[in-house]
Amino acid sequence: MTAPHPFGLHRSLDPPGVLPQLARRLDATPRALENEIAISVRALSIDSASFRQLRETEQTSGEPVEDQIGRIVRERGKMQNPVTGSGGMLLGEVAAVGPRHPAAGRLLPGTPIATLVSLTLTPLFLESIGAVHRATERVEVRGTAILFARTLYAKLPADFSEEVALAAFDVAGAPAAVRRDAKPGQTILVIGAGKAGLLCLAAAREAVGRSGRVLAVEPGRAAADRARELGLADEVFTIDARDPVVMLAAIDAATSGALADLVVNVANASGTEAASVLCARDDGTVVFFGMATSFSAAALGAEGLAKPTRLSIGNGFVPGHDALALDLLRCHPALARAFADLAGRPGA
Amino acid sequence: MTAPHPFGLHRSLDPPGVLPQLARRLDATPRALENEIAISVRALSIDSASFRQLRETEQTSGEPVEDQIGRIVRERGKMQNPVTGSGGMLLGEVAAVGPRHPAAGRLLPGTPIATLVSLTLTPLFLESIGAVHRATERVEVRGTAILFARTLYAKLPADFSEEVALAAFDVAGAPAAVRRDAKPGQTILVIGAGKAGLLCLAAAREAVGRSGRVLAVEPGRAAADRARELGLADEVFTIDARDPVVMLAAIDAATSGALADLVVNVANASGTEAASVLCARDDGTVVFFGMATSFSAAALGAEGLAKPTRLSIGNGFVPGHDALALDLLRCHPALARAFADLAGRPGA
Repeated sequence: MTAPHPFGLHRSLDPPGVLPQLARRLDATPRALENEIAISVRALSIDSASFRQLRETEQTSGEPVEDQIGRIVRERGKMQNPVTGSGGMLLGEVAAVGPRHPAAGRLLPGTPIATLVSLTLTPLFLESIGAVHRATERVEVRGTAILFARTLYAKLPADFSEEVALAAFDVAGAPAAVRRDAKPGQTILVIGAGKAGLLCLAAAREAVGRSGRVLAVEPGRAAADRARELGLADEVFTIDARDPVVMLAAIDAATSGALADLVVNVANASGTEAASVLCARDDGTVVFFGMATSFSAAALGAEGLAKPTRLSIGNGFVPGHDALALDLLRCHPALARAFADLAGRPGA
Repeated sequence: MTAPHPFGLHRSLDPPGVLPQLARRLDATPRALENEIAISVRALSIDSASFRQLRETEQTSGEPVEDQIGRIVRERGKMQNPVTGSGGMLLGEVAAVGPRHPAAGRLLPGTPIATLVSLTLTPLFLESIGAVHRATERVEVRGTAILFARTLYAKLPADFSEEVALAAFDVAGAPAAVRRDAKPGQTILVIGAGKAGLLCLAAAREAVGRSGRVLAVEPGRAAADRARELGLADEVFTIDARDPVVMLAAIDAATSGALADLVVNVANASGTEAASVLCARDDGTVVFFGMATSFSAAALGAEGLAKPTRLSIGNGFVPGHDALALDLLRCHPALARAFADLAGRPGA
């Protein structure tokens, strides 16, 4: 094993030296090297696509889900479903922090944490597998995982349920980007009022202040009403963002033609790229967080509309995003209630 | 017909009022309304996918390519291939400029221009169809096209061949973004040394000045040598950007660990997202211009690597990009020669 690499290249066995996510097999030796963290793993939260595939295999082959997980982790040194390619994340407590890890001295053994990156790049050694909770796609385990110097994790808070904390971490990049990029007095448009959208409304409200404006668009009547009741947005439009003409008319009227300085797209649906671009000022920015975003639809759409607007790919990692998301929930109790309600509904 | 809309909604007949690109049929009445331009069309440059489909139909049905084009334009009011959905662009001269068009008084009748947006959103009326040039996928025509207030076009220059000018316009967004975003003293990394890449090297050199650094990466030996000979980059690496580990090692060494302030990805190949993110500083920016870019690979890649780097979708339109691209060629004669050589080779 060569010197431990911050991205974990030293743990890739097959092929050796590649990024761990691309490796077929990792070295899962359950001992933290000088810049690694060892985690006592308590549960795996399996990616939905992977969990569905494991259940299907159980039905066709008779091999129970827990046995499949044990076999995959033994063979690969990580829980990466070989069919779907996907992973999930894990929950546990810090067991050991290497003396040259960036958090050495600050992160104490026993701290409950969750990983914020995929199991597909996380070395994992399992001693035993316990209950499989099919409704929540969670599996109780005992084992050890390794985090590299650059592996993202978050401390689990004492004042929120695990479910709410994980849901907040999952979408934390979007409100953190809004808080970083929105300026006092600006007009911010949030497209989509799910978990990410609600957090973005709170972040936008805090960033633009009283002189700024926060607008929201959401096609579902109940979701739009929920967003309205929070009082974070100045206006919430019940509009389907897949219709660019209707969208432009609404935002043009609401802003007296000035349009939005920043458009944050957190819609689940595809086909909302043109509307996002149209509703932004020529010198504004659109940031796309929805995984249904089409790169070419966004790029060619802006060109076809002669909009020099800046287009961003939402980066799920903004330093401090996990703490910011929890703080937004703490400062806005009505938001926290609505968020917890959504976090309890799979797919919401 | 309602009041003419800057995006041309008033010309959409089926369904009425949608963005022209989405309409099955446009009103191609060959007369400029108050904020429109009428173009005397001389030639259509048909999109490659569309031209291939038209030739296949000619072989199976016997209907000549020119007859198919005439039929499609009669039926749809635009040259949008109903099978591939794609268009192309057109060449012609300005016939009339409406008094309320943004260019009224500045753009004179007779000026030779090319459209910079797709034929899929351009109302077109054809009087006759002439020669079909199969090698260049160009069709000589006589007719009238309509440009809306927001339709992009470029004046054809007198000092470059049509082929070189069109190739420069095609990739002009990337060097314009570099010229706008790169600052004196910064380190810029350009991934890909095709037509767009070479123009980006010139734009980067001008933007960062003598105190800055320009690095280039290109997998092809001949293309890398060509880039080296231009003397615009401080270093050109013959590396395949699909290997993130090799890329990181090279750029890390070349910058003494500082990495690049701005990474411009103009690679044709897919799978270069991780390397692009890895070679940028945490507080830097990656701008993706390659149409092979995967939105999710870029977003999830950055998160998995814990890189808070800003990620941009390259916008093909930056105001003045057409003039900037031609000026870069004028100021760098060796670049102009290399560019003209590449422009003469389809697919280069």
